[in-house]
Amino acid sequence: MSRFADRTGPIRLGMVGGGQGAMIGSVHRIAARLDGQFRLVAGALSSTPDRAQASAAEVGLDPDRTYSDFVEMAKREARLKDGIEAVSVVVPNHMHLPVAREFLKRGIHVICDKPVTGTLADAKKMKAAVDRSDALFFLTHNYTGYPLVREARERVARGDLGDIRLVQVEYAQDWLAEVPARDNKQAAWRTDPTKSGAGGATGDIGTHAWNLMRFVTGLVPQAIAADLQSFVLGRALDDNAHVMIRFDGGARGTLWCSQVAAGEENGLRLRVYGTKAGLEWRQENPNQLFVTPLGGAKAIVTRASAVTTDVARALTRMPPGHPEGFFEAFANIYGAAAKAIRAARAGTGVADFLVPGIDDGVEGVAFVEACVRSSSRNAAWVQL
Amino acid sequence: MSRFADRTGPIRLGMVGGGQGAMIGSVHRIAARLDGQFRLVAGALSSTPDRAQASAAEVGLDPDRTYSDFVEMAKREARLKDGIEAVSVVVPNHMHLPVAREFLKRGIHVICDKPVTGTLADAKKMKAAVDRSDALFFLTHNYTGYPLVREARERVARGDLGDIRLVQVEYAQDWLAEVPARDNKQAAWRTDPTKSGAGGATGDIGTHAWNLMRFVTGLVPQAIAADLQSFVLGRALDDNAHVMIRFDGGARGTLWCSQVAAGEENGLRLRVYGTKAGLEWRQENPNQLFVTPLGGAKAIVTRASAVTTDVARALTRMPPGHPEGFFEAFANIYGAAAKAIRAARAGTGVADFLVPGIDDGVEGVAFVEACVRSSSRNAAWVQL
Amino acid sequence: MSRFADRTGPIRLGMVGGGQGAMIGSVHRIAARLDGQFRLVAGALSSTPDRAQASAAEVGLDPDRTYSDFVEMAKREARLKDGIEAVSVVVPNHMHLPVAREFLKRGIHVICDKPVTGTLADAKKMKAAVDRSDALFFLTHNYTGYPLVREARERVARGDLGDIRLVQVEYAQDWLAEVPARDNKQAAWRTDPTKSGAGGATGDIGTHAWNLMRFVTGLVPQAIAADLQSFVLGRALDDNAHVMIRFDGGARGTLWCSQVAAGEENGLRLRVYGTKAGLEWRQENPNQLFVTPLGGAKAIVTRASAVTTDVARALTRMPPGHPEGFFEAFANIYGAAAKAIRAARAGTGVADFLVPGIDDGVEGVAFVEACVRSSSRNAAWVQL
Amino acid sequence: MSRFADRTGPIRLGMVGGGQGAMIGSVHRIAARLDGQFRLVAGALSSTPDRAQASAAEVGLDPDRTYSDFVEMAKREARLKDGIEAVSVVVPNHMHLPVAREFLKRGIHVICDKPVTGTLADAKKMKAAVDRSDALFFLTHNYTGYPLVREARERVARGDLGDIRLVQVEYAQDWLAEVPARDNKQAAWRTDPTKSGAGGATGDIGTHAWNLMRFVTGLVPQAIAADLQSFVLGRALDDNAHVMIRFDGGARGTLWCSQVAAGEENGLRLRVYGTKAGLEWRQENPNQLFVTPLGGAKAIVTRASAVTTDVARALTRMPPGHPEGFFEAFANIYGAAAKAIRAARAGTGVADFLVPGIDDGVEGVAFVEACVRSSSRNAAWVQL
Repeated sequence: MSRFADRTGPIRLGMVGGGQGAMIGSVHRIAARLDGQFRLVAGALSSTPDRAQASAAEVGLDPDRTYSDFVEMAKREARLKDGIEAVSVVVPNHMHLPVAREFLKRGIHVICDKPVTGTLADAKKMKAAVDRSDALFFLTHNYTGYPLVREARERVARGDLGDIRLVQVEYAQDWLAEVPARDNKQAAWRTDPTKSGAGGATGDIGTHAWNLMRFVTGLVPQAIAADLQSFVLGRALDDNAHVMIRFDGGARGTLWCSQVAAGEENGLRLRVYGTKAGLEWRQENPNQLFVTPLGGAKAIVTRASAVTTDVARALTRMPPGHPEGFFEAFANIYGAAAKAIRAARAGTGVADFLVPGIDDGVEGVAFVEACVRSSSRNAAWVQL
Repeated sequence: MSRFADRTGPIRLGMVGGGQGAMIGSVHRIAARLDGQFRLVAGALSSTPDRAQASAAEVGLDPDRTYSDFVEMAKREARLKDGIEAVSVVVPNHMHLPVAREFLKRGIHVICDKPVTGTLADAKKMKAAVDRSDALFFLTHNYTGYPLVREARERVARGDLGDIRLVQVEYAQDWLAEVPARDNKQAAWRTDPTKSGAGGATGDIGTHAWNLMRFVTGLVPQAIAADLQSFVLGRALDDNAHVMIRFDGGARGTLWCSQVAAGEENGLRLRVYGTKAGLEWRQENPNQLFVTPLGGAKAIVTRASAVTTDVARALTRMPPGHPEGFFEAFANIYGAAAKAIRAARAGTGVADFLVPGIDDGVEGVAFVEACVRSSSRNAAWVQL
Repeated sequence: MSRFADRTGPIRLGMVGGGQGAMIGSVHRIAARLDGQFRLVAGALSSTPDRAQASAAEVGLDPDRTYSDFVEMAKREARLKDGIEAVSVVVPNHMHLPVAREFLKRGIHVICDKPVTGTLADAKKMKAAVDRSDALFFLTHNYTGYPLVREARERVARGDLGDIRLVQVEYAQDWLAEVPARDNKQAAWRTDPTKSGAGGATGDIGTHAWNLMRFVTGLVPQAIAADLQSFVLGRALDDNAHVMIRFDGGARGTLWCSQVAAGEENGLRLRVYGTKAGLEWRQENPNQLFVTPLGGAKAIVTRASAVTTDVARALTRMPPGHPEGFFEAFANIYGAAAKAIRAARAGTGVADFLVPGIDDGVEGVAFVEACVRSSSRNAAWVQL
Repeated sequence: MSRFADRTGPIRLGMVGGGQGAMIGSVHRIAARLDGQFRLVAGALSSTPDRAQASAAEVGLDPDRTYSDFVEMAKREARLKDGIEAVSVVVPNHMHLPVAREFLKRGIHVICDKPVTGTLADAKKMKAAVDRSDALFFLTHNYTGYPLVREARERVARGDLGDIRLVQVEYAQDWLAEVPARDNKQAAWRTDPTKSGAGGATGDIGTHAWNLMRFVTGLVPQAIAADLQSFVLGRALDDNAHVMIRFDGGARGTLWCSQVAAGEENGLRLRVYGTKAGLEWRQENPNQLFVTPLGGAKAIVTRASAVTTDVARALTRMPPGHPEGFFEAFANIYGAAAKAIRAARAGTGVADFLVPGIDDGVEGVAFVEACVRSSSRNAAWVQL
């Protein structure tokens, strides 16, 4: 019980976006609630007043703390004695910056969905806004919250793999293999450059794969060569990307992301090969990490097992064999944000809770734009 | 968002048991919280006052609603205007009856951990208490909350498997393969007949396997023959059981449960074979259901896929490929309980939300006692 | 190359049974041929002269060495200067004894398919015939030829598992889930008590499972309790059996064999749990052995890997990752028989090449008859 | 029995290379022998006379048909009345051409290991030699012999996948992750450009992956961009390659081959995604093919199951569930070669038995050289 608990009560949370029909807002709410570290008390769940009210009622918000205008929300909540301390930003990409900025400048911590913005120019503005603010900024690259992703990172960091030579990361889906139904809101904005930004698959899932690879290996990419496609007729953004990567120090890798890989659901998979060992992790069964020392047997390391490091164990809630999944990993991001917020509140030095932040965000969008640039130059190498 | 939401606000929940060091209390709290259907407002988390207060503070309970005496809690909460509407009972088995009874008789709904009691005599008393009460009684056979377990049940019910011939169910662990550490509270009471009841492995996990098999197949067991062992020296209760089962209509099956199967974590696995098809489900990767028509290819049915029935889809929160796990399944039990409580509140006829209840509880303990009786008679058949 | 080679040339082999339409004869021929240790030079592939000749021609036998009468074949081959040294007996079970006896008494080694006979009385006669003969007798419990089955045996023998507590073995198929087509010769004799013997599933696949369990663990069964069924209407022999086992020393186990488990192909699977570790092996992907030390990570030991013992490596032909399968395992049985035959030829003391023999055969049929006896007594315990 | 049998007796086979210490020679011998279609009767297993004799004796060759000079062997066997009809060429790559040429020009069929030669120049000379000869030429891209690879090809061909968009193929090993031991003959020549040719990993396993992709999809590659590495210090040839592929018609793909991917054994894996369905096959468990229609459940198609096409069933020897592996697939290549040879012998028109031949060989070496060229130009696109 203890490690997820706190005597000082839940953090007061607001939300912008995430109204009826949205998926990711619901995910953030569950993640925020799961360990009891946050309490949702205000929201501008939609910019349409009726919809905002109806959505707020569904999630049990006080009508008095229900908004349709996020600027108004930011202003008023900042003035309230028990106003929100943090806000979840779950609007389409192009709105991340304008929304987050309003809260950041009023000292309200921001928990922002990814990618941080639709364009690199915006991402840099976001960074400036974060730099100017006393508030903290968290980016929900939620896959880094999986205990065994942390385990993988720890094992790489302590040298179990030796020097890394190869990284193969992929995120394959098929939900956009055809022209989506017109009422599919999630598909609609994600395939619209004015809302999603420069990247389609690269922005929506490629950034996750990139971040995961960076988080686990710590390798610094030097250049990429990317071949992007839009397989579905009339699609303005990429729905598939093959990317070759060169890292400082000589390691190599590839990143593949696709929204048109028929039969794939959410196939995020990371493989890392070093001079001493290799490892593999797959989101679809995240409770197993495969580690194979060169010349040894493949070991299936399970979440919270006797051989799992404390790094992973600290983020699990159940014994191994009882599967934890997507929401628990997402809640770990919220949990780490909560720790950081409480540390900030207490004025203690902020430890590194390993939550992705603004720099990861800028880097992610830079990756997307580099992909687009490389692809437009016939997959030429682009320095990062 | 909608299907897990409710405009009338969360149900006020209390808890008895689940203080510091307990695991299952934390599980119930997360499950209750996950979908925002319940709000924990009172608790007697321990019978030791200091511990009760410290535990309550950790989970953010108001000191005024913190108790160490569950009778006092029941009395006072029943009188309060905004007193609890339901209580989670997460004490050791032998205390389920005395605790639940206090709340039932005051019209407070009970969500009770399994097995319902330690003895069949107590289980029958529990049933009497439930029958006398206006309140509802739910038993957290949480594995029935997995979407693909519901899917399996639905497919059996609609005839996909034809007539069932065979059921192979098992629940294998290894956490009690050795004498546990003295400070392992969970092991301590589970291996103590005065607290756990007649069954060791049979009571703790055998009842889950039994319930899962019953839930999915609907088959009515007629007789069992059980061979129980206590492999760990000095252990008073069984830590392994092999059980052969004969069902009405001629189907046969086996149930194996073990706490000493080295290398097994929480290996709950169900296989059902009919005249037309077979199916398999495993808790350790619960997002896949394997269904094989006789003469066809094995199909991997994933949670919330396009081929999954509405029965399963109604209980999922994310697209397939994003793993849901133990807590989400447990939350589905709480969610169904919430629906039933709200329906009761509204005075509408209570639909069948498929939450295990008192009859499942009585049957589970009857299964345990039948195992013990059969085993004491050299694994002779015992009628059920 | 070397370990499967021999300078003295292939052993001259004959075959009784295995004509057109038979499967197992073809298996034996491939197994005998695979490593070049045997050369098929004579055969009575059918008792029908036309069919015998046609079958012999198909496999390239010299017409002069083609027979339809196995007695004539035994007599003549025994007299020929370059007559057969060994014979493969691949007729239906009830014919094993009469056929093998003719060759044994003439000093011709016998490689006999399993079960050794249809009845225990015949098995004992077979043993007497073997005892009286100078020739060797091999029983093709082919699964013991898998390298990783040997690996499992070795690991148990050297104590990796500690004291064994539990054995779970199963062999599940579905090919007899319905009444077979009339022209299915393999199904026909296997479901006919006059040809197959006392056991259906128990005889055909239960004996394999039993032998595998015995081979790997070395445990001595003391008693069994068996519940046999014939699910398919009109079937004279069992098509499913659940068997509980008690071993000397207190270990327990279950054996399940079925020919009606819809969706199962050849699901032979062994799990062994000891005080120190557990292991699992599955025939359907035989190139992996799972070994889990208590408190450690599950290791996937692959065939011929760096951590595989010499015992297994001696029986592999390729590096790990290149799958070997059913035929290679079967060929390992033939290879061991070849070694034994050459050792006998050389007059050197016969080492233990771990080929199942007559004692395994007698034990297998005893197991079948014990199953039948137990089942007829309502699954009462039967001593072995 | 019938489909692998032939009344006309085995084809007389010779072998060049494959002496003591070689692995691939032994593989060819087993493959040739497995179905009884060939009989090894002559060989120049080594160019060192002593070694040639010793090796020949081990495999049971008549000393009179034992050679150390392949030219002499070709000359003499061509003159013998019962001289070899076909020869297996299993020498290092740079010797394929000089050896094969001697036999081709004398009308002896050649079964050649891959890659066809070390250089494209040699490959073209080989093609010229084949074109001039009456004899047939087979290239042992053995993975195409797996029944489920044929199944995949058939399903693509009949349109189950719709239009192919993506192909992901990889072949990952780790056996050359470190500097190999000096006495490792197989490693020695494969890492020596004068013997192996232009490619290291690309030549040894990349060509297999390429051929597999081509065989299954039929897609015509238009251009590749390749990034090659030699991770092991001092290695003259590539030991890892990432390759992006553009196909005629717009499909895209990647090929990854590696000899330094720690923990990988023989990880050959193919994934193909079309507009209607996706499929996946893995060599390490080759008895399963995964096929997922867009919007449907993933189906596990097993070798020789009821839903497998005749194309695959014709190449299997056992019911599904009994694993066939590497040797059986290799034997299928030999079996198809045998059919083609017999058809040639009979003067009947030669049907397409789908055995890879000289054109596949030329293409494979062209692929290797294109990789090297692209990589030397900073992974620029190279037209094919």
